[in-house]
Amino acid sequence: MRLGTIEHGDGTAVIVGVSDTEAAIVSGYADLGAVIAGGAAATAAIETATASGERVAVDGASWLPPVLRPGKVIAIALNNSANPDRIMRGPDTPASFIKPASSLIGSGKAIRLAERFGRVHPEPELAVVIGVGGADIPVEAAYSHVYGYTIINDLTSPTMRDADTFHYRAIHPDPEAEDGIKYVDSWVSYPGRYKGADTFGPIGPWVVTTDDIPDPHTLQITCSHDGRLVTDDNTANLRFSVAEVIAFMSTYMSLEPGDIISMGTALKRSAKGGAVQNVDLTRLGGVIEVSIEKIGTLSNPVERRD
Amino acid sequence: MRLGTIEHGDGTAVIVGVSDTEAAIVSGYADLGAVIAGGAAATAAIETATASGERVAVDGASWLPPVLRPGKVIAIALNNSANPDRIMRGPDTPASFIKPASSLIGSGKAIRLAERFGRVHPEPELAVVIGVGGADIPVEAAYSHVYGYTIINDLTSPTMRDADTFHYRAIHPDPEAEDGIKYVDSWVSYPGRYKGADTFGPIGPWVVTTDDIPDPHTLQITCSHDGRLVTDDNTANLRFSVAEVIAFMSTYMSLEPGDIISMGTALKRSAKGGAVQNVDLTRLGGVIEVSIEKIGTLSNPVERRD
Repeated sequence: MRLGTIEHGDGTAVIVGVSDTEAAIVSGYADLGAVIAGGAAATAAIETATASGERVAVDGASWLPPVLRPGKVIAIALNNSANPDRIMRGPDTPASFIKPASSLIGSGKAIRLAERFGRVHPEPELAVVIGVGGADIPVEAAYSHVYGYTIINDLTSPTMRDADTFHYRAIHPDPEAEDGIKYVDSWVSYPGRYKGADTFGPIGPWVVTTDDIPDPHTLQITCSHDGRLVTDDNTANLRFSVAEVIAFMSTYMSLEPGDIISMGTALKRSAKGGAVQNVDLTRLGGVIEVSIEKIGTLSNPVERRD
Repeated sequence: MRLGTIEHGDGTAVIVGVSDTEAAIVSGYADLGAVIAGGAAATAAIETATASGERVAVDGASWLPPVLRPGKVIAIALNNSANPDRIMRGPDTPASFIKPASSLIGSGKAIRLAERFGRVHPEPELAVVIGVGGADIPVEAAYSHVYGYTIINDLTSPTMRDADTFHYRAIHPDPEAEDGIKYVDSWVSYPGRYKGADTFGPIGPWVVTTDDIPDPHTLQITCSHDGRLVTDDNTANLRFSVAEVIAFMSTYMSLEPGDIISMGTALKRSAKGGAVQNVDLTRLGGVIEVSIEKIGTLSNPVERRD
């Protein structure tokens, strides 16, 4: 089953795909977050919609983020086995940061970039939509917490990342020092704006439920810029699996229904040798697309802002 | 005016302080986010409550985060001028990360720490509650977007930070290279769990509105562990001001009503030489308090978890 959230009339509506070209309006739900919270009543409403709901053309839909305002978007970093040669000291467990809900936009909506943002490149990622919340979720139970899968383009500005990476002396306890501390030469970086600026989180258009994707680690994932293939990868190359990430993260952060987990960038380049890092959207503009097998295509044009 | 959100009956309620010991229930609002969204009607409800609302004792209140589920909590890093000698390469503009709403707890609620978290220390901070949203807010207009001020304890695990800091070769474009890229030796760190674990965001208890705090840069801020003074600082020592942070951040991330901005750690040690980094709450347990002049005291006990 494919579900999405669109602008509809003066508000928003959930749609369910009924064919390649048509969807049906699911009455009474403003977004997929409300459907997830709605339980059995929402499932019944989806069935009614599929049978006899108002039809809309998929082509003309004005897409919104499937969950309009998730409690959190957890993004996993450095989680692709495609080029381990890059990592001199890398994650033994899933590393993560939070993208704000205000950074999310629907498919078709403009990515708005300013010259002062410096370089901004796409990062094609599989995203997990949490259906059932929980903490300390065992790895064997992890998939029962998943509602479905969607696509995120985890836009990244390496220019801002460089500006927000600092070399400093961290304060560590030292029982032998007179003032009880010692300084340790350290690096730290802060992803607030380089990952979280407005429009840096295109997501959707569809969420495909788990019954249609029993194994999320067999999906071809591609990224194209103005029709030119850049990334040609497969979710089999994710280092930590969806189940491992859910189990690990939930021992630190309670997961809530509607939370999103972005699984990390598909990095394997296309045969012609592209790298997402070469696709500087600030300079190049154009249209950036991320496609995942069985889910669909997330497509966003770039627009200039001040 | 002082406002807070508490557990009340089977749900939650907003209270307004009417004396040092008493508060009044503001009818019809589940949290401060609803009050901010409620505009003039909410202001009228607060006046009615102050005059004749149901009284509750402040002492017995079961506090919740003032805004239960803010759209985002932006935390500013390395923003204290108290010890610039630590920074070998530091921020020219405010650096930031996002804490998830799921990390927030009210005053009095337990900070739950596991042995496996490693070291966890407190970070006493002034927090801004956004009243009026906006993007590209001019510095002169910034204070008109503030609803009020509260207290955050931005709990931090340096052990997890070390584990989630990576040395890697970043991919940069290189027009002269055959494959169009070059590798640049880089460090990156990801604050997801080291800043965003459950209970890592004690906040409140009160939000004091801007009419009572016309200048947020004159406030004494202290941190005590089991009654021992650790930090003795003043918001005058913040490097980037509230207005500068709002103006800068809003050119990247649109601010929304109820968003929280945590202004960065008060670092100046007490005369007896404490450093927050020495207060390892995982090992020491106890009660950690942050007080800010004119706002109040945020107090949380530490509890052990698996």
